[in-house]
Amino acid sequence: MLKVPEHQVAGRQAIDGKLGPLIDKSGHFYKPLQDDDERGTRELTFYHSFSSNTRIPHHIRRFFPVFHGTQLLKASDGSGLRPHLVLQDITSDHLNPSILDIKIGSRTWYLEASNDYIQNCFHRDKTTTTVSLGFRICGLQIYNESGFWKPGRKLVQNFTADDVRSVLRKFVSSNVGPEPDCCFADSVYGGCDGILERLLELKTWFEDQTMYHFRSCSVLLLFDKESFLRGKTPFAEVKLIDFAHVVDGNGVIDHNFLGGLCSFIKFVSQVLADSKGSTMEDKF
Amino acid sequence: MLKVPEHQVAGRQAIDGKLGPLIDKSGHFYKPLQDDDERGTRELTFYHSFSSNTRIPHHIRRFFPVFHGTQLLKASDGSGLRPHLVLQDITSDHLNPSILDIKIGSRTWYLEASNDYIQNCFHRDKTTTTVSLGFRICGLQIYNESGFWKPGRKLVQNFTADDVRSVLRKFVSSNVGPEPDCCFADSVYGGCDGILERLLELKTWFEDQTMYHFRSCSVLLLFDKESFLRGKTPFAEVKLIDFAHVVDGNGVIDHNFLGGLCSFIKFVSQVLADSKGSTMEDKF
Repeated sequence: MLKVPEHQVAGRQAIDGKLGPLIDKSGHFYKPLQDDDERGTRELTFYHSFSSNTRIPHHIRRFFPVFHGTQLLKASDGSGLRPHLVLQDITSDHLNPSILDIKIGSRTWYLEASNDYIQNCFHRDKTTTTVSLGFRICGLQIYNESGFWKPGRKLVQNFTADDVRSVLRKFVSSNVGPEPDCCFADSVYGGCDGILERLLELKTWFEDQTMYHFRSCSVLLLFDKESFLRGKTPFAEVKLIDFAHVVDGNGVIDHNFLGGLCSFIKFVSQVLADSKGSTMEDKF
Repeated sequence: MLKVPEHQVAGRQAIDGKLGPLIDKSGHFYKPLQDDDERGTRELTFYHSFSSNTRIPHHIRRFFPVFHGTQLLKASDGSGLRPHLVLQDITSDHLNPSILDIKIGSRTWYLEASNDYIQNCFHRDKTTTTVSLGFRICGLQIYNESGFWKPGRKLVQNFTADDVRSVLRKFVSSNVGPEPDCCFADSVYGGCDGILERLLELKTWFEDQTMYHFRSCSVLLLFDKESFLRGKTPFAEVKLIDFAHVVDGNGVIDHNFLGGLCSFIKFVSQVLADSKGSTMEDKF
C-alpha cells in the first residue's frame, strides 16, 4: 500500500529502482535510513533529541514534521528490509499543493564533516545562490490551470537572484507566465496567518536557540490554491525538513541559518511590498 | 606632528619602518591608501559613497568614523608622499580606553575576490572562530590598575568560544584575572545607552539595508573606565571600522554580517545575564 510521493520536489526519489522515501494513505512519510554514511543516523538522532526536548516551544514544534519513530520496510530499491523514519506527510491534506523547497544558509558544510564533503559543498555553494543570497531554491512545483510547473533540477540550480524573485511571484499568482499577477500575495505572504509572519516567528526563535545548528536544512513553503478558493484552512504552510546534517549548537546561535533566513524574509517582504505597489497602481 | 596611534589593537601598524596609520593631536586618523592592491581604492570608494548617501539614517551614521577626505602625507615607511584617508580618530577623546576589535561574519572572502584571496580567507576562517561563531576577535586591550592587558596576535588568533566569553567579561571588570568581577557589565552592556542597545540598532538596520555588504569589517567596542568613574559620557562606544572589502549589496541584505552580528549580540547578552545572575547570588 506504499507509493512514491507525488509532490516531492527535491532530494533522492524512489524511482527507477533507486532508494527514496515512500508514503501511505494515512498521511505517513517513510524516509529510508541510509547505511552508506552518517546521514541517516544524524537525522534519527535529531528527531529523537528534538521530540523529547522540553525546551522547544509549542509554536516552534509546529514547524517540524511529526515524528512517529522508525519502522522496518521493504526499501524502494528492492534491497529488502530497511529501517525507515516514519514522519508526517506534509502534503497529504492537499490535492494540488504548490511547493518551494529552499535550502537555508550561506554555507551547507560544517567543520565536523569530511574534507571531501566540505570541498563539494563549498563548490556547490559558490556556484548557486547559496553564497550570494544566503539560501538556494532546491526544487519547486507551482500549480496553475494547466497543471504543475516543475522546472528541472539543472534549471533550478542555475537560478539567479532575479529568478528567485520571479519564482516567489509565480508562487502566489494565478499564472506562471512572464508577468505573474501576484493576486494571492496578500493572502499567502501577508496577514497575521501568512507565510511572512510564520518566518518571523522562526527568526525570533533562531535569534535565541543555541541547541541545534541546521546545516543543509530546508524551509518548505506550501500553498494550496484549491483550499484557499474554498475557504479551507490552512491553505499555506511553512515547514522545516531534512535534518541529516544537524549538529550540536554548543551554546552558539545558528548564525548561518539565521542570516540566510533573514535574507529570504527580505525577498518575500519585497515581493509582498511590490505586489501592493502594483495593485495600488492598477487602482489609480 | 603626526605619530603612531597608541591604541591600535589590530591591523598593520606604522612601526619598524612599515606602512601604517598615523594620528594628529586634533583627533584625525590618517590611513594610508595602499597601491599594491584594490583595498585602498575600495575603502575610498566606500567612504565617498557612504558620506554622500542620503538613505543612511542619522542614528546609523554615528556608527561610522567621520570622513574628512584624503590628504597627501609622508608615509610612515619612509617611501615619501602618499595619499591617506583622513578619518575621525575614535580613541582621541579617551585617556586609557579598553578596546575590542571584532571582525564580523562567518566568512571574510567574497565572490568578487581573487582565488588566492578566497583560499587564504577560507583557511583563516576555519581555523579561527569566524566559521564557528560568525565572528572573531582580531585584537584587544583592556585597561586595569596595572596598565593594559594586550594579548599578542598569535594568542588572539587561537581564541576559542570560551576565551571570547572570558574576554567579554574582562572587558567590563575591574580585574582581568581568572575570575573577572563584571562590575561594569550592567552600565556598559546594559541599559538604554549601553552597547547591547547600540548593537541591536545596528542589527535592525542590517535586516533592511541592501546597499552594502561589509566583508572583513570590524565592530569596535570602546569602554573608558576613567570617564565612567568621573560620570563623563560617552564612556562606551560602538563603531564600525575597516571598509577595504565593502562590495555592492545588489538588492540583497548582508546576511553574512547580520548572522555574525546576531551571534555576537547573543554572546554579549549572555555575559550580561550571567553577571546579573551572579550579582543576585552574591546578594542572597
